[in-house]
Amino acid sequence: MSRETADLTEAKDRVTSEVEEDLEDLALGEDYALNPDYVAIVADALDRGDAERLSELLGALRPADVADLMGFLSAGDREEVLAHLDPEALAEVLSELDPEIREDILEHVPSPILAKALGEMDSDDAVDVVEDLEDDKRAQVLAAMPEMERAAIETSLAYEEETAGRLMQREVVWAPQFWTVGQTIDHFRREGDDLPELFFDIYVVDPSHKPVGAVPVSHLLRTRRDTPIAQIMEPVSEIPVEMDQEEVAYIFDKYHLISAPVVEPGGRLVGQITVDDIVGVIQEESEEDILALAGVSDAGRDASVAETVRTRLPWLLINTVTAAMAASVIGAFQGEITKLVTLAMLMPIVASLGGNAGTQTLAVAVRGLANRELSAANAVRTVLRELVVGLANGLTLGALMGGVSYLLFHDPRLSLTFGLALIVNLFVAALAGAMVPLALEKFGRDPAVSSSVFVTFVTDFTGFFAFLGLAAVILL
Amino acid sequence: MSRETADLTEAKDRVTSEVEEDLEDLALGEDYALNPDYVAIVADALDRGDAERLSELLGALRPADVADLMGFLSAGDREEVLAHLDPEALAEVLSELDPEIREDILEHVPSPILAKALGEMDSDDAVDVVEDLEDDKRAQVLAAMPEMERAAIETSLAYEEETAGRLMQREVVWAPQFWTVGQTIDHFRREGDDLPELFFDIYVVDPSHKPVGAVPVSHLLRTRRDTPIAQIMEPVSEIPVEMDQEEVAYIFDKYHLISAPVVEPGGRLVGQITVDDIVGVIQEESEEDILALAGVSDAGRDASVAETVRTRLPWLLINTVTAAMAASVIGAFQGEITKLVTLAMLMPIVASLGGNAGTQTLAVAVRGLANRELSAANAVRTVLRELVVGLANGLTLGALMGGVSYLLFHDPRLSLTFGLALIVNLFVAALAGAMVPLALEKFGRDPAVSSSVFVTFVTDFTGFFAFLGLAAVILL
Repeated sequence: MSRETADLTEAKDRVTSEVEEDLEDLALGEDYALNPDYVAIVADALDRGDAERLSELLGALRPADVADLMGFLSAGDREEVLAHLDPEALAEVLSELDPEIREDILEHVPSPILAKALGEMDSDDAVDVVEDLEDDKRAQVLAAMPEMERAAIETSLAYEEETAGRLMQREVVWAPQFWTVGQTIDHFRREGDDLPELFFDIYVVDPSHKPVGAVPVSHLLRTRRDTPIAQIMEPVSEIPVEMDQEEVAYIFDKYHLISAPVVEPGGRLVGQITVDDIVGVIQEESEEDILALAGVSDAGRDASVAETVRTRLPWLLINTVTAAMAASVIGAFQGEITKLVTLAMLMPIVASLGGNAGTQTLAVAVRGLANRELSAANAVRTVLRELVVGLANGLTLGALMGGVSYLLFHDPRLSLTFGLALIVNLFVAALAGAMVPLALEKFGRDPAVSSSVFVTFVTDFTGFFAFLGLAAVILL
Repeated sequence: MSRETADLTEAKDRVTSEVEEDLEDLALGEDYALNPDYVAIVADALDRGDAERLSELLGALRPADVADLMGFLSAGDREEVLAHLDPEALAEVLSELDPEIREDILEHVPSPILAKALGEMDSDDAVDVVEDLEDDKRAQVLAAMPEMERAAIETSLAYEEETAGRLMQREVVWAPQFWTVGQTIDHFRREGDDLPELFFDIYVVDPSHKPVGAVPVSHLLRTRRDTPIAQIMEPVSEIPVEMDQEEVAYIFDKYHLISAPVVEPGGRLVGQITVDDIVGVIQEESEEDILALAGVSDAGRDASVAETVRTRLPWLLINTVTAAMAASVIGAFQGEITKLVTLAMLMPIVASLGGNAGTQTLAVAVRGLANRELSAANAVRTVLRELVVGLANGLTLGALMGGVSYLLFHDPRLSLTFGLALIVNLFVAALAGAMVPLALEKFGRDPAVSSSVFVTFVTDFTGFFAFLGLAAVILL
């Protein structure tokens, strides 16, 4: 290239990059969320069928932002946008898309184009997409892929969902343990394009391809070329392919790992998991916990109303049964209520405070189990502590509400009944809130799922029974 | 070293490493959690005052496991363990410790030793520890540190808590934009020990020290030495020092970042945030959300009973007030209840189902706001969807419970009242569950905090009022 052409190209690059810079500024708000104005501009370009403007607008967005954009577009517009992406860009956008939207979109992407896009992805992302395909589409797409890539995806699909095998990418960088730093670097420079796009650790393997250590890439850079890599390698935490992803996330968090080698049952290195996948897992698992505690099975943003009802109604139906059982206690004390209708007014307060205290203990226990602060080793101590806290809260609230009710109704025996019932219910709430998740965990169930409904049932039942039962004894 | 000595040393290394291997196997369970048996062995060595055995046992643990171990030991034993750690190990263990335990321990570590340990840490971890020190201890420790390190910590402490400035480490690797790959690698190899222990991206800076791009370390390895780094650099997401850590976590998750440069208001590079710190932030934020939804302010595992009560009682007191307000509705309908005591039995069911449905919607909305699936751009659509879902759930449960109650009580007007009240309350539950967190967010409050108590109040109040009010009109 002559000096002049070079200058021209540079000048053009500069102009283009300035325009792009402006669009980028416009695209994202200060909080890095997609700007509603930008969505409107894209929608406008789509309406006018202005392909050039659309390419420009999409070009200013990173894949994750294009994926966000899709969430705001109609089905027709989404297809239009997809048609503007080359296989590489399509690959990246597909990896970022909300699963609900992706499922919808995948039906409309021609199989050969999809096969090409999958070839551009790391194997873990490709598997993620293939999972979402309908059976016959999946067969078509896999058939259109080169033998090697297809085999890699099929092997990964054979692992169970939410395990290390599914999470890992098969692209991994390794070196034999007798190499030096210099040999390793020279080898990588020769391999160049065959290496994964990004990697953080080089796994040192023995002759049977078992990982014996890892060398962070930055250590390669700062060490003399004649140093054997075995000398600078660090111990690795091997992840078995069948390990649950929640477990994997725990290990990454605990040891601050950036990547970890995944091994087959025999110990052979078959892939790696990187921390950016783990960030996704942690988000997912904690969202699952929040929703499970509230009695919701997840059904993404784009789920239909019918699907959403299906994720919520089952728990409400179970709650109907438990609420009816708790209410049947009231039925047994109808005589008492007819004699003193104030009981009907105070009994929901006892049940409600118990429910809240139980939920507090429950949330602490579920959180403790998730981050392993709570385990078999300290379960007894934790339950005892919760019981003491429950008693302390009960005594405080019992004394307070007993006092307030005396000021309102001037009936010392009613106040005594009210106060005692609160103490009993808050104690029972602590017991149930701590024991229910521990019991679920013990029996291999997810402590976040279904524990709320148990605990609320216990506190409702106890609230009504303790209050009305004590009333029958003390008052009437 | 002669051939023979080398062989001997190797043999000895092998034996040592085999013993260590065994201890390591024993130390951790299959799930990488600390083995209770191992804790017992350590406790035994402590009891016997067997220093050598203790060193061996501690040597087999990684810092995160030593930190876990501390959670199972008495205060006296903890001090004993600390005395066995050199400054580097102490530094790593301190970074990993549960904040409650750390606070307790820090009082007992002599200031000069602590100063030395802080010098071994990345600046973000050091700041974390210094924050936990009592005022006079902090002054002592800072005074014992070298000028440069002290200044770095003091600057970081000047940033607000939970911002990028607090989260970042000041140790950062950068290169001027006119360097080539070869120059950069040679420079790093010369610097050697002055570089951070671990790094993933090299920030390319302009003459005013503003970051203009980043080069992943792995790209340096695979690119020809004569390539200018400006040619292989990638765009960076700059993080302003004052950005909230939740925001930072969002950006890392969205763009799958491994590290990002932190800049001062003028744009100068002052530090970096790495993804392992972000994993901690995400865990923390999601735990905060779970606990906040349940009405608990966090107070770690080692908080005293009094502290724990203090984190729970305030919400229970607020709940007392709202429960009393809801119950006062019942007081207004005492006449109706006296006439038909069955009302007292059914009304908690209406309130309870409403509360559960409200909590479901609330959890979905809080989750959506946290991961930005729910924003101003789709708030109206989301609320409308929730209302339709609420209506659908209400119609289903209303019809079902109306039917069941007719079979039990053979009173068509009672069943009509019950069914209608359920429809009303589930609709209102959806409205409150969606609107309350959106309103809190709109006014700059955390939508997870205090929203449950609002929503439950609304569904309790509506449950009682709709049911008893309709009863007064339809039944009596």
